Amino acid sequence: SKSYTITLLPGDGIGPEVISIAKNALQLVASLEGIKFKFNEMPMGGAALDLTGVPLPKETLLAAKQSDAVLLGAIGGYKWDNNEKHLKPETGLLQLREGLKVFANLRPATVLPQLVDASTLKKEVAEGVDLMVVRELTGGIYFGKPRGFSTNENGEELGFNTEVYATHEIDRIARVAFETSRKRRGKLCSVDKANVLEASMLWRKRVTLIASEYPDVELSHMYVDNAAMQLVRNPKQFDTIVTNNIFGDILSDEASMITGSIGMLPSASLGESGPGLFEPIHGSAPDIAGQDKANPLATVLSAAMLLKYGLGEEKAAQRIEAAVLDTLNRGFRTGDIHSAGLNLVGCKEMGEQVLKSI
Amino acid sequence: SKSYTITLLPGDGIGPEVISIAKNALQLVASLEGIKFKFNEMPMGGAALDLTGVPLPKETLLAAKQSDAVLLGAIGGYKWDNNEKHLKPETGLLQLREGLKVFANLRPATVLPQLVDASTLKKEVAEGVDLMVVRELTGGIYFGKPRGFSTNENGEELGFNTEVYATHEIDRIARVAFETSRKRRGKLCSVDKANVLEASMLWRKRVTLIASEYPDVELSHMYVDNAAMQLVRNPKQFDTIVTNNIFGDILSDEASMITGSIGMLPSASLGESGPGLFEPIHGSAPDIAGQDKANPLATVLSAAMLLKYGLGEEKAAQRIEAAVLDTLNRGFRTGDIHSAGLNLVGCKEMGEQVLKSI
Ligand SMILES: CC(C)[C@H](C(=O)O)[C@@H](O)C(=O)O
Ligand SMILES: CC(C)[C@H](C(=O)O)[C@@H](O)C(=O)O
Repeated sequence: SKSYTITLLPGDGIGPEVISIAKNALQLVASLEGIKFKFNEMPMGGAALDLTGVPLPKETLLAAKQSDAVLLGAIGGYKWDNNEKHLKPETGLLQLREGLKVFANLRPATVLPQLVDASTLKKEVAEGVDLMVVRELTGGIYFGKPRGFSTNENGEELGFNTEVYATHEIDRIARVAFETSRKRRGKLCSVDKANVLEASMLWRKRVTLIASEYPDVELSHMYVDNAAMQLVRNPKQFDTIVTNNIFGDILSDEASMITGSIGMLPSASLGESGPGLFEPIHGSAPDIAGQDKANPLATVLSAAMLLKYGLGEEKAAQRIEAAVLDTLNRGFRTGDIHSAGLNLVGCKEMGEQVLKSI
Repeated sequence: SKSYTITLLPGDGIGPEVISIAKNALQLVASLEGIKFKFNEMPMGGAALDLTGVPLPKETLLAAKQSDAVLLGAIGGYKWDNNEKHLKPETGLLQLREGLKVFANLRPATVLPQLVDASTLKKEVAEGVDLMVVRELTGGIYFGKPRGFSTNENGEELGFNTEVYATHEIDRIARVAFETSRKRRGKLCSVDKANVLEASMLWRKRVTLIASEYPDVELSHMYVDNAAMQLVRNPKQFDTIVTNNIFGDILSDEASMITGSIGMLPSASLGESGPGLFEPIHGSAPDIAGQDKANPLATVLSAAMLLKYGLGEEKAAQRIEAAVLDTLNRGFRTGDIHSAGLNLVGCKEMGEQVLKSI
């Protein structure tokens, strides 16, 4: 039987709670599918800072690299908010992405019929939304050099960053996006600011070039300001969106809020080879940490993405996805997605119900 | 009686149609308030490209600089979309902003009770939204150097831009934002990405410093990805938002779409001294240009901002604002904001009705 090593990074806030639920779900589908998992739990983020003084210990990165896939809970919290940059939990996350070379971040935003009322958008606008943001994750202004602080000729302080893309960085994320959209509805919208930025002009040029390899996918281009509007006006117009690191950060969060169920949304970060990184898109929610209130479904669905995209275990992934839908259909809801008449449960109980459904 | 020179830049698409309505409104309030206007119409954008070969002729910039205020319609269109950068209508707009040194861009997003149904957000989420985005307009990644294209050590093409802010650029926009919010509900939210970008760390540091000059204004900070979410989740939480050029581009367009009435929203761009630049936030809408379908109210309200912020003519500004509300109350609507039972009119007729209300 197949055997995989999974690095678990519970992290901070509600991270440990949701990771423990997802681990149970993975263990159960493993036994049903004849798979074996070895779990390797490592410190990361604020938890690692407190324990070791750095947000991503060498041992954690090494364990992650040597495993078959990495499942992350969440990182960050008020406690570390004013840390210097190299001692921020977020810096650990960026180092992890860079270390694993996971340049392609897939962020689905789907409005489930069961949860359409959770959206702040009108029902007719929200229902049926099913889009995927493919965000470039290891380049652009997040990593570009030069960056830092300096002084100008007037003795004033300057803060600066570099938005930079090389052709191979654009080409490979474009290919992931075309492949992704081919498995969906075959419509790809590339988002940039090519009317102002040179980095975006190169982006648009390369994406257009790569399009010739995918004649079956319909490519369009949109400026980022317009995309931010169109997501509110008519999110159903989108199938797959591909964009750079910073625009992807902004638009994927906007898209996730449009579904109204941010506690439901998983993500996958993939490289050319090597282990993928899977995490819920929600944060560490320090205000509800340790209170058994968190919605574990985004992490459970991230575990499903791990099975599907990380290990190629499609059947096991489908078991988890079906179990989540079944649990919702049976009326169980955590506080963030609760509405009148449904069964309000905590994080643990939601986990039990998912296991039951599996 | 006071006399002002106003540079009119009709520009492209629906620009000329909406400018002519706004000019009529200005002329009428002038006669009522004992003001004199000298209008100076100059080419700009695609229209200037066709006429003179450049998107912002020297004569246009000079006329704008020598006038008391500048009113712009809209620029751009398919025809010039594939032009080289220095021959794009958008480049003319950036040159105009830079030339006039209008570093502070005020973009209100208000949901009028009359138009709450136009929003794609649920009524209870949209109603009462009344926020102002203060966008830095002449710095950051739009103008930062170095920028351009180059080749890396592997012979690959690179496209790059520089996000850079100097303390005085942050300080002056922060002050405009604090002043603005003081005249509103006294709550200022500064949006950045200080968990990743050095330019944002300096931004946050300086805004926090300037806050001590405004103890009556309540300052908060938010990451840009979260802000993009919060605008969808609960836009009413915002009073005034201050942010950099690119984040302001994205968030102000998102905020405007949340109102559902982008054809209604004006903007003002102001410098330390010298003429301000006033323009509707909508684009040139080439698909409906010349068909008498455009909504002129955003430009009419931009003329009101011109009177208020540009010339200090508060009473004349109020006359125009009141007239726009009155016209809406009397049931007149252009296509973009029309709903059943109301009086669908074209651009010209809407203009006539505004004059009547004045
Ligand atoms: C925590 C932060 C560094 C991170 C990012 O900006 O990428 C987060 O917002 C995300 O989107 O995963
Ligand atoms: C046309 C374009 C250059 C411009 C910008 O990005 O500033 C526009 O989107 C705006 O917001 O006024």
